[in-house]
Amino acid sequence: MSEATQEAQYRRISRVSLGGIIHRSALRWPDKTALVDGALEFSYAELDRRSNAFAHYLLAQGLSRGARIAMLCGNSAQMVTAFIGIYKAGLVWVPINTGLAVDAVRYILEHAEATHVVIDAELLAKPELRAMLDALGTRIIVCVPEGQVAPGGNTTAFLDTLKGQHGTLPEVDIESGQLAQIMYTSGTTGQQKGVMHSHASVHAALSGNLFELGLRPSDSTLCVLPMFHCAQHAVSMSFLLAGATVVVRRAFEPGAMLATIEQRGITLLLGLPIMYGAMLAHPARPTTKLSSLRLCLYVMAPMARTLLVDLIEKFCPGGFALASGQTEMYPATTMFKPEQQLKRFGSYWGESVVTNETAIMDDEGRLLGRGEVGEIVHRGPNVMLGYYKDPEATARARAFGWHHTGDLGMFDADGQLLFVDRKKDMIKTGGENVPSIKVEEVLLRHPAVLQVAVVGLPHPRWSEAVTGFVVLKPAASATEADIIAHCRQHLGGFEVPKSIVLLGAMPQTTTGKAQKFVLRQQYARHYEDVSGAT
Amino acid sequence: MSEATQEAQYRRISRVSLGGIIHRSALRWPDKTALVDGALEFSYAELDRRSNAFAHYLLAQGLSRGARIAMLCGNSAQMVTAFIGIYKAGLVWVPINTGLAVDAVRYILEHAEATHVVIDAELLAKPELRAMLDALGTRIIVCVPEGQVAPGGNTTAFLDTLKGQHGTLPEVDIESGQLAQIMYTSGTTGQQKGVMHSHASVHAALSGNLFELGLRPSDSTLCVLPMFHCAQHAVSMSFLLAGATVVVRRAFEPGAMLATIEQRGITLLLGLPIMYGAMLAHPARPTTKLSSLRLCLYVMAPMARTLLVDLIEKFCPGGFALASGQTEMYPATTMFKPEQQLKRFGSYWGESVVTNETAIMDDEGRLLGRGEVGEIVHRGPNVMLGYYKDPEATARARAFGWHHTGDLGMFDADGQLLFVDRKKDMIKTGGENVPSIKVEEVLLRHPAVLQVAVVGLPHPRWSEAVTGFVVLKPAASATEADIIAHCRQHLGGFEVPKSIVLLGAMPQTTTGKAQKFVLRQQYARHYEDVSGAT
Repeated sequence: MSEATQEAQYRRISRVSLGGIIHRSALRWPDKTALVDGALEFSYAELDRRSNAFAHYLLAQGLSRGARIAMLCGNSAQMVTAFIGIYKAGLVWVPINTGLAVDAVRYILEHAEATHVVIDAELLAKPELRAMLDALGTRIIVCVPEGQVAPGGNTTAFLDTLKGQHGTLPEVDIESGQLAQIMYTSGTTGQQKGVMHSHASVHAALSGNLFELGLRPSDSTLCVLPMFHCAQHAVSMSFLLAGATVVVRRAFEPGAMLATIEQRGITLLLGLPIMYGAMLAHPARPTTKLSSLRLCLYVMAPMARTLLVDLIEKFCPGGFALASGQTEMYPATTMFKPEQQLKRFGSYWGESVVTNETAIMDDEGRLLGRGEVGEIVHRGPNVMLGYYKDPEATARARAFGWHHTGDLGMFDADGQLLFVDRKKDMIKTGGENVPSIKVEEVLLRHPAVLQVAVVGLPHPRWSEAVTGFVVLKPAASATEADIIAHCRQHLGGFEVPKSIVLLGAMPQTTTGKAQKFVLRQQYARHYEDVSGAT
Repeated sequence: MSEATQEAQYRRISRVSLGGIIHRSALRWPDKTALVDGALEFSYAELDRRSNAFAHYLLAQGLSRGARIAMLCGNSAQMVTAFIGIYKAGLVWVPINTGLAVDAVRYILEHAEATHVVIDAELLAKPELRAMLDALGTRIIVCVPEGQVAPGGNTTAFLDTLKGQHGTLPEVDIESGQLAQIMYTSGTTGQQKGVMHSHASVHAALSGNLFELGLRPSDSTLCVLPMFHCAQHAVSMSFLLAGATVVVRRAFEPGAMLATIEQRGITLLLGLPIMYGAMLAHPARPTTKLSSLRLCLYVMAPMARTLLVDLIEKFCPGGFALASGQTEMYPATTMFKPEQQLKRFGSYWGESVVTNETAIMDDEGRLLGRGEVGEIVHRGPNVMLGYYKDPEATARARAFGWHHTGDLGMFDADGQLLFVDRKKDMIKTGGENVPSIKVEEVLLRHPAVLQVAVVGLPHPRWSEAVTGFVVLKPAASATEADIIAHCRQHLGGFEVPKSIVLLGAMPQTTTGKAQKFVLRQQYARHYEDVSGAT
């Protein structure tokens, strides 16, 4: 056997793959329930067979290694089966946020050069989207709920693709380091970027999650955040790696969530703080049995202390943890653990997880000590392969041998990571640095204020002027002067916004993050005529 | 940035390393107790600093990537610190079984071309061993218990190597796939082979163990099996990855074990069945608080049912699990879980762990179904890089894209793996296959029998003749005819041993496995003069 052959054999024996997760779990727990979607319930053996069948279908289309398959789907059993099938065929999964405008979807389809799209029937029913797909010539595989009729035209129903295909694992030579998915980031700071991950880089994050979440085969989770984003995708796949049960829901409805938690004995949830608030406040909550819940993860935003205290008492005494991460560094990368939650104030991200190492770095690549603010950087096997077709951005993200998150933070005296701001959201005004989050927290304390975003806008005197965008509560009223007076009570002089703009609605991403780049663009000339404003 | 530079940056950011485990745990749990050795106790921060210092010492000797550092040590804090230091310096750890004869140690030192050896003072005091090391010119780093005087001559005390060295992590460019250790296998079937593992392959096994053992930072273990073997090394490193506590002991003494379990609140043990039996029978056991124990792992041998029932009742109600594996496929690879233990009879290995996939293969590379006996094969990222300087044996181990264990087994109807025999221990006699383990189990049922080994010896009529080697219990007596008559009651005619050899002591490895190759060599001509024997 030649050295090259030996090396190839070694790579084949030692590989990890994302489709392999399901295959191995099916070998070990064939009859366990893997996936539940409403009345549908699939065992691991069944999920393995169905995803194998879809992989065989894709390969029969002449698709080969590296081909990109886009997806526009809400959470469903068909969606999970489809992306596992894409992994198993050695193709590249390109999930697209279903809330994006048609232009943004087209940008991704063209940028990724996706030849096929797996799409929900209800999305395909939108004439503008359908026309765009037809114009691009994208082959359409449509997810039609069982019992409903497939749309006409040149489409194939997902369930029809499985018919007549083999249920055995296709013999595809997948390598650990091979491109497995491109996820386009949600665009808080501008143009969508395609984050490339290999089978191994996603797998590394999942392995770490097994430890961090203490997952056992007896666990079950209810997935309501969209799986086209990394957080819910990572949690779902971690559960499938553990032989646990994944229950999927398309939309958040607090009463239905509570009923499912009781009925399925759900042990772990992932949600936004606002979702936990809605479940807590729901009239059915006091009579719902929630004792199966052992851990609740929240993401994207800090949790108000009063809500957290209430939730721990009435919803999940096992505790709450904030899981952080980003598509580029597959999550979780840090966790703010239950035992730390009520000890600390502020936007804490907690500890680096077992998967990666986390540090704080200055702009010259020096690692900083506890108490010093700098960019949060990571290194670990869960780092992305890079940005698709963007070597410059990739190189910037890898400066000094660490992955750069674009987030500012510091470790406190106990080694707990405190998030300070998005790096670009640090406002430089009159020679001082103002973290926008600090001003936002003060604005949110005003009794009339519902939502805020603080950005630095170009200003002839201050270079950047701290500017607050505010949405008031429905029944409340306040003037710009009221709000600035409130800020003066709580902020240093240079931190007080130079102006407050009252908005009817905040421009935001589908995950609820304010789109500051939209505000920056729209209000770029806000201070042009106010030179001399203080 | 060129593509090659980008690729190098990616490898640097995404790497895993075995020294990095300690470094990351020290960042996360600096003040937690990592390592206990008698009265010595080291926090993660301290273990990190001390192992960094040893790495700096090694690098200052001019050693560079790939250099082999041998080790002849029993379990101690110095041993753990030393092997972590070797990992951190990017060098190759070559642990040697301390029970080997001087010739076998020399074979390994020469084969591995080790320039340095880390050795316990009590071993170095053996004149023949010391003379051999001096003759080879091996540089000697000697582990002297704290407070004792170092031996003279051209040696350096391990604790002296740490003095004046930096406590920070050395900047060594370690790659995930780089050679990290060569462990020579224990020699049940013949000549020692050097099993090469990378940082990534060992790390993959450890990550899987976090899930399989449900490890938490609050866990603690007491290591009494030698860490120069893969099983105890893997458990110890898994605990260090989890931020848990490792208590090391040099020798098994049941009373001291019980005292430490109570004093340290040990949660998980790894041991041989015989060790659990001794702790159970110890007079201090009924008055020792053992309630901290949540799981006991046993290895190397099945557990007698009566002992197991007693142990579950009186020693660890949390249960017992048999962990299997081999140096070539870093352990654990399979586990026979607590909930299965009392349901099944026979030498069960249970389920494939999350790290790897396990199958049964025939000699032509066909995967076999449930109920069919064949070779146990695995694939997964915990597979060895190969046998050092032995590409032929490496190629044989990798046939058909799976790692070949040399063990025979089958999956039963429930998918539980049953170990049948070492492949070479299948005796082919008169056209029939006889698994030696089947005959051994029958022999062990004879009331006078203490230890057995059954091998096939060359025979003019039967090709191989089933031959039983037996050690009797101290006070018992039995003749060859008695024992053969006993076998006739329980075995098919062709399975009954053609002769029984009574031995005063069984030749065995330091881990208690009978050295059948010794018996085969010694008794190769046993049947030369008995042609015509039935």
